[in-house]
Amino acid sequence: MTAQAAQQDTKSEDNPLDRLSTLLRDDMVRVNEKILTHMQADVALIPQLAGYLIASGGKRIRPLLTLAATMLSGGDMNRAYGLAASVEFIHTATLLHDDVVDGSLARRGKDTANLVFGNQASVLVGDFLFSRAFQLMVKDGSLEILRILSDASAIISQGEVKQLATTNNLQTTMNDYIEVISAKTAALFAAACEIGPVIAGQDLSAQIALRDYGLNLGIAFQIADDVLDYNADQKKLGKTIGDDFREGKMTAPILLALENATPPERSFWQRTIGQKQQNDDDLMQAMEILERHNALHKGLEMARTYGKKSVTALHNIKGGTQNEPLAAALSGLVEFSINRGY
Amino acid sequence: MTAQAAQQDTKSEDNPLDRLSTLLRDDMVRVNEKILTHMQADVALIPQLAGYLIASGGKRIRPLLTLAATMLSGGDMNRAYGLAASVEFIHTATLLHDDVVDGSLARRGKDTANLVFGNQASVLVGDFLFSRAFQLMVKDGSLEILRILSDASAIISQGEVKQLATTNNLQTTMNDYIEVISAKTAALFAAACEIGPVIAGQDLSAQIALRDYGLNLGIAFQIADDVLDYNADQKKLGKTIGDDFREGKMTAPILLALENATPPERSFWQRTIGQKQQNDDDLMQAMEILERHNALHKGLEMARTYGKKSVTALHNIKGGTQNEPLAAALSGLVEFSINRGY
Repeated sequence: MTAQAAQQDTKSEDNPLDRLSTLLRDDMVRVNEKILTHMQADVALIPQLAGYLIASGGKRIRPLLTLAATMLSGGDMNRAYGLAASVEFIHTATLLHDDVVDGSLARRGKDTANLVFGNQASVLVGDFLFSRAFQLMVKDGSLEILRILSDASAIISQGEVKQLATTNNLQTTMNDYIEVISAKTAALFAAACEIGPVIAGQDLSAQIALRDYGLNLGIAFQIADDVLDYNADQKKLGKTIGDDFREGKMTAPILLALENATPPERSFWQRTIGQKQQNDDDLMQAMEILERHNALHKGLEMARTYGKKSVTALHNIKGGTQNEPLAAALSGLVEFSINRGY
Repeated sequence: MTAQAAQQDTKSEDNPLDRLSTLLRDDMVRVNEKILTHMQADVALIPQLAGYLIASGGKRIRPLLTLAATMLSGGDMNRAYGLAASVEFIHTATLLHDDVVDGSLARRGKDTANLVFGNQASVLVGDFLFSRAFQLMVKDGSLEILRILSDASAIISQGEVKQLATTNNLQTTMNDYIEVISAKTAALFAAACEIGPVIAGQDLSAQIALRDYGLNLGIAFQIADDVLDYNADQKKLGKTIGDDFREGKMTAPILLALENATPPERSFWQRTIGQKQQNDDDLMQAMEILERHNALHKGLEMARTYGKKSVTALHNIKGGTQNEPLAAALSGLVEFSINRGY
């Protein structure tokens, strides 16, 4: 099965993400209420812009993780709603700032918020949502959760800055790349999960197990996302293809293709990524080189390695099988995150 | 005395800000150590960029306020150091994002960080400093202080978005303007002061008195800043003149000149601010119109009205005279903030 086919065969209705959403449907209704209530502000532009992005059909994986981790740990779901909204606000704030930083034009098949409302509003509404996230945490009142999410936020921004430093930089190593995605993506997955056992007042081992589940899931998720960026069929799913290539991002596919690159291939990457000199047909050529090195397939294999660590961590939760359907959905979510076509 | 002269006659060495800095010199050393320690990160670009702005000679008014309010309230100064650094980080983060949003080229007589390091890095390092601020608060461990500063942060970003909505908008009222500056500037002044009595465990009346001192000081400070933007002699102090005019910001001077504007004057503002059509000599003409309406002078009078409220609030602190030199410096700071030449 090609990498492309692998990333599409889970597009059916019945996938682990849908199962997770179904198991937590009523709870997600409450989270969405919290999100809607707390994105309100006196200045109309704030709910307009925030609502534009939040209503645009994101997968809501992070708040689902907070809900699932809380339920699995036997924690108070009423506390989880506000905190799940807080996690989604942090995520939304980083998306708004990311799209400004990358100059992105499309997200989830729609024009980006920066394109519709301008970079200025996107930066400032991101700041607003970030502040709101902390207000929600303060309202909950757990210093430990405030620590987890403020640490995650600091790590996310460090990862984003490191990504900036590796962009267009052919010296970037696979290790640099894993550091970047662990920070910019996986840290929030980890924090979203870690909150659950903290709400439930469980011991540190439960916290570590769910954090490790989230961290490795997040790494697998991001590698798969970076493979997806070169996956030709995703265009119909509303994403532009080759964004990472055009932006000179050093992601798994290019790093894997560079490992055994021929001199002409190396020159190609040097020109297109290192020196930012790209012609119209360069993306096509980049994809041919990736294909020659089986780089998308290898990328998904890398993702699976982290996926396995994630599932192992989940099995390490003591008494984690008290809610078998939920544990099964979380376990299935790992493979789904890797093979998803969107 | 002209508005211009009024804003310059406090440029001497012995001013209330210097007196406050002298009274709190040893404490500020400790705050600066905290700032230097906590702006460090694995990615070199972060301390480089943060250090560029933080070392560029800001007045450090906000951390000084936290120190002064804590000392005046008899609070633990060791706690104040980290929290004062937190306040300065929030301020620095908003400056970084502001300069990106405004496309500013100069601050404090130097090229802006966005000009030197790029908009992308400025946005992300702003996010980092904001996260660091919350990490410092969590380390301190007071939920009440976390509430005060997360509320202030949310209000600041709302003020910034509202400012965006009033920019180039001739329908903006004086009330809108006061709302904008109360949020974008005065909220952090207020929070910086309010922290002091909270550290000291004082009652709500002390909290309210110092918050009101900071809030009204902040409003006065910002009105004076907006007058200063049209004050011809500041150029030599490293600021460009007329930034607000070029950016179409509806600040006190223009709003005051609009109150009794003649039809040709109104047409002038309509073209230059409302329709963003500015020629080289328009700033000169704008300043002539402001002069004709005595708008800079009236602006400083407005600032003084808020300054008086600030001093009154200071007098409302029960037992506030236990440290007479400090109380005198805080009182003097109000008039200084209005008349400063920088």
